[in-house]
Amino acid sequence: MKIKVAKCAGFCFGVKRAINIAENALKGLKGEEKIYSLGAIIHNPQVVDGLFKKGLQVISELEAIKLGTVIISSHGAPVEVLKDIKKKKIKFIDATCPFVKYAQNIVKGLKKDGYRIIIVGDSAHPEVKALKSIAGKDKLSDKIGVISQTTQNKADYINEIKKILEEDFCEVKIFNTICNDTSKRQSATRGLLKDCDLMIVIGGKNSANTRRLWQICKESGVDSFHIETELELKKKWFEGRDCVGITSGASTPDSTVKRAVDKIKKIIN
Amino acid sequence: MKIKVAKCAGFCFGVKRAINIAENALKGLKGEEKIYSLGAIIHNPQVVDGLFKKGLQVISELEAIKLGTVIISSHGAPVEVLKDIKKKKIKFIDATCPFVKYAQNIVKGLKKDGYRIIIVGDSAHPEVKALKSIAGKDKLSDKIGVISQTTQNKADYINEIKKILEEDFCEVKIFNTICNDTSKRQSATRGLLKDCDLMIVIGGKNSANTRRLWQICKESGVDSFHIETELELKKKWFEGRDCVGITSGASTPDSTVKRAVDKIKKIIN
Repeated sequence: MKIKVAKCAGFCFGVKRAINIAENALKGLKGEEKIYSLGAIIHNPQVVDGLFKKGLQVISELEAIKLGTVIISSHGAPVEVLKDIKKKKIKFIDATCPFVKYAQNIVKGLKKDGYRIIIVGDSAHPEVKALKSIAGKDKLSDKIGVISQTTQNKADYINEIKKILEEDFCEVKIFNTICNDTSKRQSATRGLLKDCDLMIVIGGKNSANTRRLWQICKESGVDSFHIETELELKKKWFEGRDCVGITSGASTPDSTVKRAVDKIKKIIN
Repeated sequence: MKIKVAKCAGFCFGVKRAINIAENALKGLKGEEKIYSLGAIIHNPQVVDGLFKKGLQVISELEAIKLGTVIISSHGAPVEVLKDIKKKKIKFIDATCPFVKYAQNIVKGLKKDGYRIIIVGDSAHPEVKALKSIAGKDKLSDKIGVISQTTQNKADYINEIKKILEEDFCEVKIFNTICNDTSKRQSATRGLLKDCDLMIVIGGKNSANTRRLWQICKESGVDSFHIETELELKKKWFEGRDCVGITSGASTPDSTVKRAVDKIKKIIN
């Protein structure tokens, strides 16, 4: 049985940057000060756990902060929360991914120009929550601006737009805010699906981009499993397979992928 | 057998306006002066023929003009031709449909803002030729602006856009430049198709919007015929039918539709 690992693996630019920001902040800690992350800094429980051991505390409310600095996660934070941070004069470091920032700036511009704004994505995801807060209340307009979560699946994106276009509209402005890393990972995964009869998708269960890779795999009809670590691998998945493909999300460490590959090699030999 | 006539019939706003402009110009003719139309003023040969009898000469080249005034047709004219008219100091009246003008202005704006411009329509149609001349040479850009011929079929329009969206893009700005009259006529035609087992589409064979109505009819699977006048109707088309639907283009006179209905009544009785 062959094992094929997707060429796009390892942390994406935004995840690497957020982790660096956190690690540098932790190195500079003085006295009673603490470093907090407002929500998971990236969507990989094992990485978040590693940072917690180094001193990074995940909080969901600003009220939990005593003395110290709060890091805005790679997904960004809602306008109201940022206002609150400034009002309360809490020290903060912004680890918002620059690609997410780019999408946020587009929303700001569309709002200013009187567009009705449509965001294609998971409404419960922190990135989308932040984008929604920038867009503000829905206002009727004959001009429609469409953007998507940076980790959206392109096919879904196009279908959403098609629905809008089929309605009456005067002007639709569409921005491709799916980040390069997401596009490349999706393409690499689709490439593997041509050759493989089993797919293992590795990454946080809460990771939007990983879940989309899994969705693409499942929709192709190839048997696919989503795991966070090698501990979840089951021997029976591999019985009678010719080729197993391995793909991973933007917040999955290389080391996690390597451990999974090693475990699979043991299982099949 | 029932006869159902689409609720949207008669000249559209732009056609009515162009005919009025021509008739008023013809009324004011003095001495040796002549009134010319640069291409068919509207796409209905019978109407153009009627205007010719009143003195309107259709020309394809500015060189054909002696003393007199040229009318720019409802479909607009290419930038180069308009420049030539001004350079040669030829008197002219602009009968370009305001909805076509609106599309032209959008193209001007997109060009100014550095968008790559995509026009969905028949490249040989005078409206599209004029729009293309405004867009100028194709320039590479990561911003794409999409507009359509005012008489485009919405489904085609959306499919073209989908193709563009499936490619890599940074920003796509889409304008719904299909005019209201076209949309309404297409909807009314689709409504008739539900009840009828035969469709008669009346209008110029060179009329883009009429041809699109015919296309919609044919694609529905209902037997459909495109005629310009009642003289083309054939008895055998009506044999064994339950309900005949009649729809007509934006440049088809009410009187032509009426004559066709009268002829059909005679055929089936």
